[in-house]
Amino acid sequence: MEVELISIGSELTSGKVVNTNASFMTGILENNGIKTLRITTIGDEKDFIVKALKECLPSTKAVIVTGGLGPTPDDITRNAVSCAFDRKLIRNLKAMEAMKKWYHKWGMEPEEIDFAQAYFPRGSKLLSNPIGVFGFYLEDMGRLYFFIPGVPQEMELLIKGKIIPLLKKRMPLKVVDFRTYKIFGLTESRIANKLKDLENNLKDIRFSYLPKFPEIHLVVSGEGENKKKVKINLDSVEKKIESILGNYIFSKKGLSIQEEVGRLLLKNNATVSIAESCTGGLVGHLLTEVPGSSQYFERGVIVYSNQAKNDILGISPEIIKEFGAVSKQTVEVMALNARIHANTTLGLALTGIAGPSGGTEKKPVGTVYTCLSDPEGIKTRKFLFPGNRKIIKELAAHTALDQVRRYFLK
Amino acid sequence: MEVELISIGSELTSGKVVNTNASFMTGILENNGIKTLRITTIGDEKDFIVKALKECLPSTKAVIVTGGLGPTPDDITRNAVSCAFDRKLIRNLKAMEAMKKWYHKWGMEPEEIDFAQAYFPRGSKLLSNPIGVFGFYLEDMGRLYFFIPGVPQEMELLIKGKIIPLLKKRMPLKVVDFRTYKIFGLTESRIANKLKDLENNLKDIRFSYLPKFPEIHLVVSGEGENKKKVKINLDSVEKKIESILGNYIFSKKGLSIQEEVGRLLLKNNATVSIAESCTGGLVGHLLTEVPGSSQYFERGVIVYSNQAKNDILGISPEIIKEFGAVSKQTVEVMALNARIHANTTLGLALTGIAGPSGGTEKKPVGTVYTCLSDPEGIKTRKFLFPGNRKIIKELAAHTALDQVRRYFLK
Repeated sequence: MEVELISIGSELTSGKVVNTNASFMTGILENNGIKTLRITTIGDEKDFIVKALKECLPSTKAVIVTGGLGPTPDDITRNAVSCAFDRKLIRNLKAMEAMKKWYHKWGMEPEEIDFAQAYFPRGSKLLSNPIGVFGFYLEDMGRLYFFIPGVPQEMELLIKGKIIPLLKKRMPLKVVDFRTYKIFGLTESRIANKLKDLENNLKDIRFSYLPKFPEIHLVVSGEGENKKKVKINLDSVEKKIESILGNYIFSKKGLSIQEEVGRLLLKNNATVSIAESCTGGLVGHLLTEVPGSSQYFERGVIVYSNQAKNDILGISPEIIKEFGAVSKQTVEVMALNARIHANTTLGLALTGIAGPSGGTEKKPVGTVYTCLSDPEGIKTRKFLFPGNRKIIKELAAHTALDQVRRYFLK
Repeated sequence: MEVELISIGSELTSGKVVNTNASFMTGILENNGIKTLRITTIGDEKDFIVKALKECLPSTKAVIVTGGLGPTPDDITRNAVSCAFDRKLIRNLKAMEAMKKWYHKWGMEPEEIDFAQAYFPRGSKLLSNPIGVFGFYLEDMGRLYFFIPGVPQEMELLIKGKIIPLLKKRMPLKVVDFRTYKIFGLTESRIANKLKDLENNLKDIRFSYLPKFPEIHLVVSGEGENKKKVKINLDSVEKKIESILGNYIFSKKGLSIQEEVGRLLLKNNATVSIAESCTGGLVGHLLTEVPGSSQYFERGVIVYSNQAKNDILGISPEIIKEFGAVSKQTVEVMALNARIHANTTLGLALTGIAGPSGGTEKKPVGTVYTCLSDPEGIKTRKFLFPGNRKIIKELAAHTALDQVRRYFLK
């Protein structure tokens, strides 16, 4: 099935807001076997909306319009629809009652202007929305037109809960399902290359890649006659993907890398402390993004200066003089003492050169050492990351978290 | 002047990539007095591109097309242009030479397929691009059509360096200039309310708000007959805005809050150390995003557990038992000892409850204490931030940085 999107709002045509709604919608439609042919973005101008509604691409079976449903004078989608399809706006009692209830819940009384949101073009059906303005849809010349609010949470609710189920009813009787594999440590082209032979020999399965720096998310969609067949097909592909990509896949369940690390620490009854230099607190920030992280994250130290490295972690000036603050020797003492001082299961340390200055011929910008210490020993790794300061910090922090994850996979 | 944008790329109509190019372009065009009427986003399909080129809105004086200029088979913009305007593609020697040079610089030899990028529709002019594929433009029926690569850095370079200057030459003789004020600590509606009277009495000046959570950026554009008049007008408005918003404006020069804090620390020959709890390393991460931050950022500690608070910062179990880990007493010892241990000019500390659990009736989720210590004393503040864990962490970290900034404004 092919559809078309129309995004309405002057904030979208003046650089004030990025149209993330369109990207979200096309993604979720794609995963349900629905292809978006075109996205038209226009300001709050009635003539342009009417024109867009009248000039849809002939092959599209549905048009999804977001935005312009609010009560203020610049919300003119309703009027444009009325004009484009020559259908009067009619007050809907059910919507009025719902609005009153909603306002009363917040201790307010709706004003006359608010009731503009209870008018709908003749013949349209309501898309009820528990958290805001009602959407609606109508059919014209065999094509469905959906109108929903542009507020991201409301759009998401109505797309997932109402529009996709309605569209699926009109689709040829095919089941579409998908799975997402989150990958770290391989580039998109490397992954595609590894999976090339597999992909070429698949039926009713499509791969798509979503780069979410520094991760790559591989979305595998399958379609077929029934749920069971699609599941069997996806299961079999999953086995093959896992045997090819192995531990580069860090989550099959939508977890972020810090959530996966947290899950593994909890499961293994382990705790961690960290010692950061070049990442400046980013590893701690990522770890503590996860609710409940205080159960396994004990402390962190950001030893940016050499004095701090000495004071807090006992890295003597001699070590730094002989080997450097960015060295195997330094990172190993950092990890060891981070663990011992905090009395945690693991100690994780990083030191490196994030740039733009500070690089040398022997240790160029991007050089990063990581070390993981446990009661039985240490594991040290050296990297040379490409990119600018921001990218190097992100890559270093993700790599360090990945080292903890891989530790538990042994 | 009114223009229209066409964004080409199947990654944009399948949810893989958010169309940030369109948002960037409309923003910068708006700031130059150029209004975008419509953005059409389509996949790499020749027919749709031809259709989009042929069906531009009548009032637009220019169309800017991004994407589809690469060498691979799915890059079909060139062919679509040739077809839409009935102009043959002709090999351009200058572009070929530039390409060869570019490849040789990287130690590579261009292949035949790469030279597809050296073909341009008859009558078009080149938009040279030092970092990638050349763009081009042509005139048809009095309208300018620009074609540039979709790679964000290249798009930015060509929009700023080539397209806007070319469009300005065609605009009525008006000068447009703008200034950006970055604001922290007030909501968008609060700012708009404070500036309402000023805004209503201005001529040739437009305000627009760009929320960049947790900051608000106010863009003030001015237009007039000549540069000097516009400057005088903008200067006078700036004075008024500053007298209304005062220290809520943290940068007039495009700096981030961490860059502004770094600038002030350097200028005042001061250093800082930090002690974080609820923000988990985010303050350190932000401070160290700035190149050269090692000149003023000495160290940080992330004292997530009570044991860490005691071990590293000497916060006794008695203090925590009597007042709590999230309390005025705790944050003050944190800031004081952070400064003393590191021997820095300033010690900055935060402790709070980021949620979703851990809140009590007296100290609900969102409660955050910050404290700044200097050789002469301490300043403690208490906040109750709204939102989820992520938002609370961001607000707390920005507020703490803002406290350092305001310290130097005294």
